[in-house]
Amino acid sequence: MTVLDQVNGPRDLDDLSEAELVELAGDIRAFLIANVSKTGGHLGPNLGVVELTIAMHRVFDSPTDPMVFDTGHQSYVHKLLTGRQEFSGLRTRGGLAGYPQRSESEHDIVESSHASSSLSWADGISRAFQMTGQDERHVVAVVGDGALTGGMTWEALNNISDDNTRRLVIIVNDNGRSYAPTIGGMARFLSGVRTRRSYRDLRERSQRAFNLLGGPGRALYRGVRGGAHGFLSRLTNNEALYSNLDIKYIGPVDGHDIHAMEEALTQAKHYGAPVIVHAITEKGRGFQPARDDDADQFHAVGVIDPETGEPVGAASRPSWTAVFSEEMLAVAEADDRVVAITAAMLRPVGLHAFAERFPERVHDVGIAEQHAFTSAAGLAFGGLHPVVAVYATFVNRAFDQLLMDVALHRAGVTIVLDRAGVTGPDGPSHHGIWDLAILQVVPGIRIAAPRDGERLREELREAVSIDDAPTVIRFPKGSAPAELPAVERLQDGVDVLRTTEQPDVLIVAVGPMAPIAIDVADRLAQQGIGATVVDPRWVVPVAESLVELAAAHRLVITIEDGIRVGGIGTRIRQTLREAGVDTAVDELGVPDEFIDHASREQILEDAGLTAQQIARDVVAQVLGSRIPVARPLPDDRVEQDTSSERSTTRPHGA
Amino acid sequence: MTVLDQVNGPRDLDDLSEAELVELAGDIRAFLIANVSKTGGHLGPNLGVVELTIAMHRVFDSPTDPMVFDTGHQSYVHKLLTGRQEFSGLRTRGGLAGYPQRSESEHDIVESSHASSSLSWADGISRAFQMTGQDERHVVAVVGDGALTGGMTWEALNNISDDNTRRLVIIVNDNGRSYAPTIGGMARFLSGVRTRRSYRDLRERSQRAFNLLGGPGRALYRGVRGGAHGFLSRLTNNEALYSNLDIKYIGPVDGHDIHAMEEALTQAKHYGAPVIVHAITEKGRGFQPARDDDADQFHAVGVIDPETGEPVGAASRPSWTAVFSEEMLAVAEADDRVVAITAAMLRPVGLHAFAERFPERVHDVGIAEQHAFTSAAGLAFGGLHPVVAVYATFVNRAFDQLLMDVALHRAGVTIVLDRAGVTGPDGPSHHGIWDLAILQVVPGIRIAAPRDGERLREELREAVSIDDAPTVIRFPKGSAPAELPAVERLQDGVDVLRTTEQPDVLIVAVGPMAPIAIDVADRLAQQGIGATVVDPRWVVPVAESLVELAAAHRLVITIEDGIRVGGIGTRIRQTLREAGVDTAVDELGVPDEFIDHASREQILEDAGLTAQQIARDVVAQVLGSRIPVARPLPDDRVEQDTSSERSTTRPHGA
Repeated sequence: MTVLDQVNGPRDLDDLSEAELVELAGDIRAFLIANVSKTGGHLGPNLGVVELTIAMHRVFDSPTDPMVFDTGHQSYVHKLLTGRQEFSGLRTRGGLAGYPQRSESEHDIVESSHASSSLSWADGISRAFQMTGQDERHVVAVVGDGALTGGMTWEALNNISDDNTRRLVIIVNDNGRSYAPTIGGMARFLSGVRTRRSYRDLRERSQRAFNLLGGPGRALYRGVRGGAHGFLSRLTNNEALYSNLDIKYIGPVDGHDIHAMEEALTQAKHYGAPVIVHAITEKGRGFQPARDDDADQFHAVGVIDPETGEPVGAASRPSWTAVFSEEMLAVAEADDRVVAITAAMLRPVGLHAFAERFPERVHDVGIAEQHAFTSAAGLAFGGLHPVVAVYATFVNRAFDQLLMDVALHRAGVTIVLDRAGVTGPDGPSHHGIWDLAILQVVPGIRIAAPRDGERLREELREAVSIDDAPTVIRFPKGSAPAELPAVERLQDGVDVLRTTEQPDVLIVAVGPMAPIAIDVADRLAQQGIGATVVDPRWVVPVAESLVELAAAHRLVITIEDGIRVGGIGTRIRQTLREAGVDTAVDELGVPDEFIDHASREQILEDAGLTAQQIARDVVAQVLGSRIPVARPLPDDRVEQDTSSERSTTRPHGA
Repeated sequence: MTVLDQVNGPRDLDDLSEAELVELAGDIRAFLIANVSKTGGHLGPNLGVVELTIAMHRVFDSPTDPMVFDTGHQSYVHKLLTGRQEFSGLRTRGGLAGYPQRSESEHDIVESSHASSSLSWADGISRAFQMTGQDERHVVAVVGDGALTGGMTWEALNNISDDNTRRLVIIVNDNGRSYAPTIGGMARFLSGVRTRRSYRDLRERSQRAFNLLGGPGRALYRGVRGGAHGFLSRLTNNEALYSNLDIKYIGPVDGHDIHAMEEALTQAKHYGAPVIVHAITEKGRGFQPARDDDADQFHAVGVIDPETGEPVGAASRPSWTAVFSEEMLAVAEADDRVVAITAAMLRPVGLHAFAERFPERVHDVGIAEQHAFTSAAGLAFGGLHPVVAVYATFVNRAFDQLLMDVALHRAGVTIVLDRAGVTGPDGPSHHGIWDLAILQVVPGIRIAAPRDGERLREELREAVSIDDAPTVIRFPKGSAPAELPAVERLQDGVDVLRTTEQPDVLIVAVGPMAPIAIDVADRLAQQGIGATVVDPRWVVPVAESLVELAAAHRLVITIEDGIRVGGIGTRIRQTLREAGVDTAVDELGVPDEFIDHASREQILEDAGLTAQQIARDVVAQVLGSRIPVARPLPDDRVEQDTSSERSTTRPHGA
């Protein structure tokens, strides 16, 4: 029986000896490598926080003392220490989530895994504890050094630093990396801290100081404010992390030394005011392949060989990301005004090839989407054409900047949204299902949703040729499908994918929903219902030819993998009515709910976004006589008894 | 002829003597007080930047050197120096905008006036200049100390501080205030700088140092990097503004001493890398009533007496803000879990009374909307019910936090959006026309739009009683209308404002559009068309009774003062179709365009959102036989020849 086997909750750590704690850390590392290599997941970050998390749970008492992880991908060790050791279904439906999830455990507080938010959470929680007399409770936030590049942390620290006695401990988990190496002045500062002196030497002094401290020492410590930054601060004043905010600072501490971490956290716990504990850790610690990997140190992996770290499984078709990556090179070769911006995601969004070829023309701004978008407007003002590549879920962070800085100024900025629509295993905070709804309200914007890799290439080229408005290209996670050739391209760029001589239903497919739309058409044909399928390619603004096509059909179905509410379908329908075309429109999409982790296929099925379900609903409408078909259906060709199964996206009651 | 009269462009400043420059500053102050007291506008901030702006235009050459104001409300002096001295129509249609506006002048670059964005703009512009060989051009950003509390500035500075030779000068206009006194650790730091030593003493040393500098001195200056923060830095290391980012720093400088400012800016200009120049200024300088006003120092004024600063004109009905202000007190008296949060807008959103009565229960986070929303989620986790009160336009800054931190966690947070919908004189960046469209896609959210003060009171009380979801109350700028009593309140809370025995048209009014909706009904009645008018009170989720009502009518009109695209109307229509109700729906609202400054009335009229235009369009539809009325209209009662006038919101072509 391993030490890990004996830990069913954090208080089981209390009686472990130092030697057992070290053994526990080893158990956890072995467990993580063995399990995450089977399921995929965030391996590197969790290997880096093993000792740090053990120390946290020794010094603080979760859930009385809430623990907030920023981001939550570094919470696997926390899960193991809080009674969750069944990792076989990690990130799959019914299995553990890849981030904290309140429904799993009372020890999980914050589920969102958009970076840089933890300090604001901790500020609010500690304020509430103070105001409601819950004075004994501490709040602990674990924030990666990469997350400190996000502006929210600055806003929070500015508030946390107000003179106060709140019990708030901020652990900066400094591994010098976000996904990739952390960038900017802050990173340079931290790197200086790590290299200027050996913090291991400091650790020894820390131990002595702590032993000497006691109550009177702490009182002294507390008395020294202003320039001094606390008695136990390891660095001179101007080396403290936020000297201009006067936040108390303890560090740097070796984050892999459980004893040193416990000491530092104990000091912080008893300080009686917000404190930063600066822990130096190593991403991928204990797993040689991760340590050898300069690019991202196994930040997030698929299924891998636990010995070599090599990916396991057959190579699939090229991903959307890979197609973008390749085409960006071609676009940049052809037009030297094209530059690239990413927010700490150079590799995940496929810009590494661009960075190798044109190192001067790519800029990683750190986890700082707001800055990414507004500085892009500035680059456009200066005569360049920036391509900002981020995950779709993170564009939510930059809505105001896109609206006010890019669009209002008619800046020619191309925004590339990877992982748009339903993503899957990363859960509610990583789905890109809101992008179409919130971006389509930006005046003058143009949004393209490619249906295959070829379209991604051509739409990217079209986008960078537009210099007086923001353009968006959005595509999902995973492999780009095989080319879906058009039967015809209409004058305004709409691709007709399927024609019919019996124009009953017009199916408008938003990008990646095209294969499903074609499948629907096939199923309808079998039922004697004719369907035309189109891919508008550019879904905003609405193409004029859609109006004419809609007028010639009896029912319009729009299919998107974003939320229905406020989606592209609503805009198409509004455009039709404006033009006096009152063909019925059903907007199919994802319900406006938060969607838990599961596979993309499972989620689309739940939402009724399968060809089978959509076809069944259309047939039911026809049967229900709400939508007359071009010619009557012979009874024997109609599928029977469809009313018993309901779909969440079915627009009709009956 | 004053000196100001002789300045038609910035280069006219070149030949002015020191004495003439001082005279010019006096002229500008007199001009601003005389003119802005007649029109209203941002008086206090502009009185504070007179000398600073003169010095900028002396040292730099706009527009070769672009100047970015953060926020743009401090650009009046810049307008005066760049040939715009006709202020009589300030902030009215056809007159000068209250912010920079590119259509006015080549000297205006950034129009958006959401705070904290200037450094990102400057970073992007300077990067582009460097990459495109425009090496001689400098970028100058003027940023208020209040704007430094916004996280975007941190993101930008982290990027600006990367080792580089870009020509970027950041002037921190430090008057210790945003709208109200600047808050947090940063404010404490700045206040320490201002009070610890006399910066006037330092100014003298600065002059000597500058005279001695010359080329070799600058070379030395450039050579000293790392800890030293530049030869001319006035403060010791740990006093520099961003010591952890290692940004070069010059200051503090007396911002009202043109000569000292010119020196500092000249040093910064020739430094060859990004530099912060820290100028200390006084808001409302030279206008005694502003200096006497502790609350906001005449940040933004209406029409006032130029001698006394007293408001001129008859008192109107209480504003929406005043009603909220009063009701918040009552709500807080009744429920001690209710706390208030604002983002540097305590007074403008009406929380000053609350702050006086419950100083411990209100928290001003600074210009930091992201933090406001996420810390509110933390407060809710801790057992409180936060009310976050901001202008509607600024909620765009916190969309992700509302979605991921508040809504995903089902936090009971009430968001109060003042200045929602069309605002008017502040132009495109201050309209609150996107709130309904982007907020309605947040899962679980509930949105109320009161039609009068009584509804604001009751909806606020309802909102704070909901503890498992975000709630929103949004209302416009200006006076709340006289109470509009309901004929009947339906079981699900929908208020029926007007009934008819001839149910032709159902008009759904979003909050403040209720008076127009009633007027439309009256006009339709005169044409023999019956209309029911309802105010759903809570516009999200869609009330069930709307479905039944819609089924009983032949046409549904929804009227909102937000954008049509993705608006509440689209959601209502989607809900109807889901329920199998296919009554035609016209969604009326603001077009998805950026709207220039003008009065609210002018803008609504342009958008066709007047009773006259809406009624005319409905009648035309009826005439066009697209919508049959309950009984045929006698010919002589129908208004003739309506087709020649088109409205931007008319949904039909014919």
